[in-house]
Parts: sequence; structure tokens; C-alpha cells
Amino acid sequence: MTTRLDHLDTPITLIDRDVLVRNVDRMADAVRSTGLALRPHVKTHKLPQIAALQLAAGAVGLTVATIGEAEVFVEHGAPDVFIAYPLWVGPRAAARLMRLAALARVSVGTDSVEAAQNLATRLGPAVDDVDVLVEVDSGHHRSGVAPAEAVAVADAAQAGGLHVTGVFTFPGHSYGPGMPSTAVADEQRALGEAADALTGAGFDVERISGGSTPTALLTDASVATEVRPGVYVFGDAQQLELERCRPEDIALTVIGTVVSRHDGDDGTPRRVVLDTGSKVLGADRPPWTTGFGRVAGELEARITALSEHHATVVWPDDRDLPVLGSRLHVIPNHVCVAVNLVDEVTVVSDGAVVDRWRVTARGRNS
Amino acid sequence: MTTRLDHLDTPITLIDRDVLVRNVDRMADAVRSTGLALRPHVKTHKLPQIAALQLAAGAVGLTVATIGEAEVFVEHGAPDVFIAYPLWVGPRAAARLMRLAALARVSVGTDSVEAAQNLATRLGPAVDDVDVLVEVDSGHHRSGVAPAEAVAVADAAQAGGLHVTGVFTFPGHSYGPGMPSTAVADEQRALGEAADALTGAGFDVERISGGSTPTALLTDASVATEVRPGVYVFGDAQQLELERCRPEDIALTVIGTVVSRHDGDDGTPRRVVLDTGSKVLGADRPPWTTGFGRVAGELEARITALSEHHATVVWPDDRDLPVLGSRLHVIPNHVCVAVNLVDEVTVVSDGAVVDRWRVTARGRNS
Repeated sequence: MTTRLDHLDTPITLIDRDVLVRNVDRMADAVRSTGLALRPHVKTHKLPQIAALQLAAGAVGLTVATIGEAEVFVEHGAPDVFIAYPLWVGPRAAARLMRLAALARVSVGTDSVEAAQNLATRLGPAVDDVDVLVEVDSGHHRSGVAPAEAVAVADAAQAGGLHVTGVFTFPGHSYGPGMPSTAVADEQRALGEAADALTGAGFDVERISGGSTPTALLTDASVATEVRPGVYVFGDAQQLELERCRPEDIALTVIGTVVSRHDGDDGTPRRVVLDTGSKVLGADRPPWTTGFGRVAGELEARITALSEHHATVVWPDDRDLPVLGSRLHVIPNHVCVAVNLVDEVTVVSDGAVVDRWRVTARGRNS
Repeated sequence: MTTRLDHLDTPITLIDRDVLVRNVDRMADAVRSTGLALRPHVKTHKLPQIAALQLAAGAVGLTVATIGEAEVFVEHGAPDVFIAYPLWVGPRAAARLMRLAALARVSVGTDSVEAAQNLATRLGPAVDDVDVLVEVDSGHHRSGVAPAEAVAVADAAQAGGLHVTGVFTFPGHSYGPGMPSTAVADEQRALGEAADALTGAGFDVERISGGSTPTALLTDASVATEVRPGVYVFGDAQQLELERCRPEDIALTVIGTVVSRHDGDDGTPRRVVLDTGSKVLGADRPPWTTGFGRVAGELEARITALSEHHATVVWPDDRDLPVLGSRLHVIPNHVCVAVNLVDEVTVVSDGAVVDRWRVTARGRNS
């Protein structure tokens, strides 16, 4: 592949394969050393090429968010997928799930008696082919039942003929400064309570599944059996600001061009404008972040505003303002949404373009 | 087309064609009555089908944000496109611009002497085929020069052989409660100063271009010659909250399913969770908005959190909580990014599915 980066028009969503492989291997080794299984969440990258790296490094299976994502990864050979989502299936979704279950080991989430009953009814004779994990709320207060409610949900699933294989949670409140250690304690407590309750009710609890990228390496095997981090393959500005990765661990950036430059002499902010807007970076900006992403190599710069095709970057006073036409690498705040915006990514190794990968599971929201 | 909505899996990005046509015609009539030309921004919809409606209703041309968007709309017959963006072109982008200029009337933005010189140099013998408008900052402090600087930029463009045809601005600071009238006054002043300066320097200023959806109907023809609203075709939650559209003007919603339901008895918020996350709605949430979008028909509900596949909706205490499996229509905060997330939209008329449109210009960020 002889394409040179400077022959491509910006914005360019770029993956550094060397850093990616290092991140994949490092997480695999670290999780292995704890005695936990690794079931990485592939909604982050949506790329079968990266799932293959993760499986080769020892992942026991993949985690996905939707039936559509599961279809893509199973079509590309994944033998075991967990749809970590409280599915509510209609007839068409149930048929898709049955087809998947004929091709791979499939487990799904549920967090209510009604959804468990609905799933069992819709699957009909295929009810045996799909495992169920009960989703527990460990403090994020999104989906999931209180640990004390897990048995009722599991009972309904079992009564419908589904095989209940365990419990899972997403400690999403780990996304905040100083929060990962609190969240991991909450997670272990909630998973432990729910698993104990299920065991007490006679269920054989094989899988106790937790973990987000901020908490995965804090989780231990005293309660959980597996973790599901996703973002670690690339890192992003959120993880940097949570100190869950270092600048040199960032494997995905978006190259932008300086299209507008303002030295501040007219009383407006001293800034450059890049062509990396929200339609390529994503607009995620939790209140605790310092901006809409970061500029690689100039971490004191601040992306103060993001329009669809403009990133406004206020530049440090003591640093030279980049010239018009220069190219900068932007680290997205939330890499999972950035990947989902492009049909294709450019892959580099040792600084040279080595491949282009189609984002096969892009847009698979259902 | 016999597809029924309830046969499609959610989330479903839905356009109500009847409301859309009414919005297109209403803006066309309103702008016509002011004596201004309408050059709608098609980055909002990215759909040639809607551009055709806009041109049929009297739009003088289209506005786009990127060369890639221009390519799509020109390929679909648009005779006149304005790339309202301060382009910095490399050799490949310049070649694409030349090809476009051979097929349609093309104008582009510039906001610096350097970018004007670069554009002229790159276009070479084709410099005659591309018109230039100087971008002026009217208070948004993104791109654009101060009005007093417009002549220097225009001189550089003209010296390079480009035809300078006018000035433009984007009054983006109109996006805030109570801001549209302030922003339109700033816009008129900035455009007026820049246009006067250019006229004084001997330029023939044919186009004075302003307007966003919040300000378009406040703009008058005393200074400006054209406006470039985009969002008005669909409306969105931002426009609702700015009181620039009414609930019955919303032409695009995303249908989601209630996948998780919590009555609040366990001390967590009384809420439902929909499968319309940030990967289908977009995560835009300016500080002045009340949430991450609104629920059609239940405007007091609040989308308090958005994950990639979950919208957490806190429900009004005095209203029945929707049952699991029910479907709700969500109004995105910022419709331009919502359309850009899907490959296809479902079109209804009179409540029945009548078409599916491919979002042809989706992802055309460069």
C-alpha cells in the first residue's frame, strides 16, 4: 500500500497498528494475571480485524451492544458473543437472534420479568440456544435491577425455558475523576449480592461479568469471573483525563488541517480552527472533561467548541500558533463514537500507511 | 411500499414527509417575502431528495460544508453550490474543486490572505471558475475575520486571480435562549461593515450572505442578500427550546423501544431506558438545553443521560410510566448530527411508510 498520508484529504481517522497491538496484548496479559476472563466490548472499534487480534490474545469471547453488531462479528468468525444489553425483541429481532444462535454461542442480557418472558416467548423452540445473564445496577442507575431483584428475573427466564448463566453489570459511574475505585467497589458488591442470591435460589452461576476500561484492571477474581473493557484498544481523551492511559497509548487520532488562524490581536481568543468537527470526532463532553478532545503533542491546548466541521482550539499563550494548512492529530473524547462516524479508517505502522479497514459494524444500532 | 413501521427493529430514524414539505415551503415563502434569496444549508439533511424540494420551492442554490457534500449534490443535479467554509486545499482537494466547477457554479469561503493565496495557486488555470466570499466573524468567534480585515483577504484573492463575489458570516451565537435577536443585529452590522469596506475598495459585492435557522426569519434585506438556514427542514429539540419551531413542526424523530423500566421504588430515579443512544441521536448537549433531546408527546420528560445505546428518560411523576416494549418518538437535540449517523431514513406520509432514502452525503467530511 503506497498511499501517503499527505496525499489524503483531512479529516483522516487514523489507527496506529503498533500501539493498538501493544494495548491489546497488555490488557490481555494484565487480565490473565488476575485470573479473570477477558471478553472485550467490540462496540468501541466495530472492526473484525481488531476482534481477531483480541481473540488471538486470549479473549474468551466478544461483547457487543446490539444484535446487528453480533451479526457482523459472528459472520467474521467469532464463536461466542455476549449481547450485554437488556434486549426487548419483536418477531424480526427474535428471528435474527435464532439465526445467530445457530452459528455461535450467544448470550444476552435481561433486566425485568417482562423482558425475560418476552424473550422466552419470542424464541419459542429456540429458547434453549440462548443463554441469559441478569443485568444488575451497581450504581450507574441506567438499566439493571437492584441485586435483590435478580432472582425474580432469573426465575422468570428459567420458567420460560431460558438458561440463566449468570449476572452482569456496567459500572458506568467509573467515568469521573477519582471514581474508578469507588465504582469497582460498588460493582463487586452488587455482583456479589446478585450472584449469592442466585446461587441461594439454586442457579448455577457460571459467569459474573463486570468491567469497563476505567475499572477492568481494578477488578479482581474474588467475585467476578470476567471483565468487558472496550476503549482500552485505542484510549481516548476521557481515559487520558481519568489517568487510565498515557499519551503514548493513544492508538486512534483524527488528523485535521488548520483552516483558520487567529492570533488574538483583534480581542477574540488566540486560536486555530481545525476541520475535525463533531461529525468526525463526536460531540461527547461530560462536564468533568477539559474540552472536546485533546491535541496530540500539545496537551495544554483546549478544544473549546466543536461545530459539525470546525474544532476551535485555544492555544497556550507561550506556544507558537500553528500555521495555516498544517496538520494536527486530535484525540477524540470518546473513541467509540468517533469510529462509528466513518466508513473507513486508515491504518499506519512505523509511520507508514499499511492498510485501510472498513468499519464493518458501523451504524449497526439494532 | 408495504413495510409497516412495527415490522422494523428500533431505533428507526423517521422523516414525516408531510411536515417536511410544509417546513420547506413555509421557509421559502417567508424568505421570499423579505426580498432575500434562500440558499439552504444541506449539511442538515444530506439528502438529494430534500435538496430537490428546496430548489423546486425557489432556493437560488445550495449551501454545503465540504467539497464531498458538494460532489454529492452536484452529481444529483444541483446547479449552484456554495461551500460556506474557509477551505484550505491541497492538490487533491483542488483537483476535486476544479472538477466540480466544470459541472456547476461553485463558490467557496476564505478567511485569510494565506488561504486565499493557497487557493488561487492550487487552482492554477481554473482560478476563474471558482467564486470566493470572504468569511467575517460576527460574534461567534469561530472562523472569519473582523470586518475591517475583509479587504485585505479580498485583495489577496483578487491578486491571485479569484473572483471575489461577496461576504458571508455564520451568527452561531444565535444558539442560546434570547440570543437570536442579538445575533442577528451583530450579523447585520458585521456584514454591512465588511460589504461597505469591499465596495469602497472597488469590489462589486453581489452576495452578502447570512443566516442560521434561529436568525433567518429575523434577517432583512437592508444589508443581506441571502440567508442559509439548514435545520428548519426538520426542526429539533434545540430549535424547540429556542422557540424557533413548534412541536408540530418536527419532521424527524427517532423511534425507540422501552428496554428497561424503573418505577423508582428502589430509590433510583423513576425512569425508562430507550434504545436510542448517542450512536443514533448524537451527543450534542449545549449547557442551555434541558436534556439530550425530547420525547415527542411527553415534552415534560427529560433525557438525563445518553450512552451509546441507552437514553435514560426521567418521567414526570404525575404521568404513567410507559410499559416495557412500547415505542416512543425521540426528537434529537441537533438533527444535523442525527441524520449523519444513519445510512438510511424511513419516510412516512399520513402515518404510512412510503419510502426509504439513502443518506447519500453521510460521512462526507472532506
